[in-house]
Amino acid sequence: MPVIVMGVDPGLNCTGIGIVQVWPGKVEYVAHGVVRTNAKDPLPHRLGVICDGVRKAITEYKPQFSAVEDIFCSVNIKSAMLLGQTRGAIIATLIAGEIEVREYTALQIKKAVVGYGKADKQQVKKMVEVLLGKQLGKIPLDATDALACGICLGFNLSGRVA
Amino acid sequence: MPVIVMGVDPGLNCTGIGIVQVWPGKVEYVAHGVVRTNAKDPLPHRLGVICDGVRKAITEYKPQFSAVEDIFCSVNIKSAMLLGQTRGAIIATLIAGEIEVREYTALQIKKAVVGYGKADKQQVKKMVEVLLGKQLGKIPLDATDALACGICLGFNLSGRVA
Repeated sequence: MPVIVMGVDPGLNCTGIGIVQVWPGKVEYVAHGVVRTNAKDPLPHRLGVICDGVRKAITEYKPQFSAVEDIFCSVNIKSAMLLGQTRGAIIATLIAGEIEVREYTALQIKKAVVGYGKADKQQVKKMVEVLLGKQLGKIPLDATDALACGICLGFNLSGRVA
Repeated sequence: MPVIVMGVDPGLNCTGIGIVQVWPGKVEYVAHGVVRTNAKDPLPHRLGVICDGVRKAITEYKPQFSAVEDIFCSVNIKSAMLLGQTRGAIIATLIAGEIEVREYTALQIKKAVVGYGKADKQQVKKMVEVLLGKQLGKIPLDATDALACGICLGFNLSGRVA
């Protein structure tokens, strides 16, 4: 039986979710999605929308592990606080669903899927398609980032070097 | 029947929880507590500990409303991100418990309980004791801050000017 992994790219406006399944030596595509929030809504409501989206994905795909992109830098204190709250709400939802949460920095994720840490989002998308053996078409880049995050954990779980 | 309110002062090391009950024209003390985490543990684990503490308080006191202190400023990006994640995890847990979440800044809370926005924590504690008609003794200041946050919402709910 494969291990199901949920990768999450946290964002208050748009959170990417990527589901992959991990077999010994390989990682396969399962699904992807994004959760968008309305900037006009109060913050607690927006966090609630994101948590609902994460919970729906948990219910549908039943992941055993999750990987949430870790963010160290931000434009300013305010945006760090908003992004932090989004990330915290997502982690709380995953933990409440009894899913083990791992953290990877963007650098670790890019190294795992592209081979070096300064790759741009298009390169990440291309390698996500190669590694999963699937053309993704015009999907949001938050979703490819989430899949990349899931692949990064998948490589670790499947014994491949991340 | 009174309305039960949970005030929360988010902090990754120590989160304060204060429970008050709101009657027309008055706010009464119910309970307080703090949830501490171990700085050596991974962040998702620490967030899980805080969420567990909040959930236990929800189960025990069944609040209909919650007030979470809003934070705009922080020493640096890293601490803003950590505090943000703590706050987001708490809000996610409250929303998952179907509790309405209100947000108050430290300025609003201090204005509500002390009358002006630059009061220090000891002054806040003293006025929390006066307003709740109860000596609190040597309780952690994170708990008095949480009670102050609950009183601030309580005043709004009970029709008193906050």
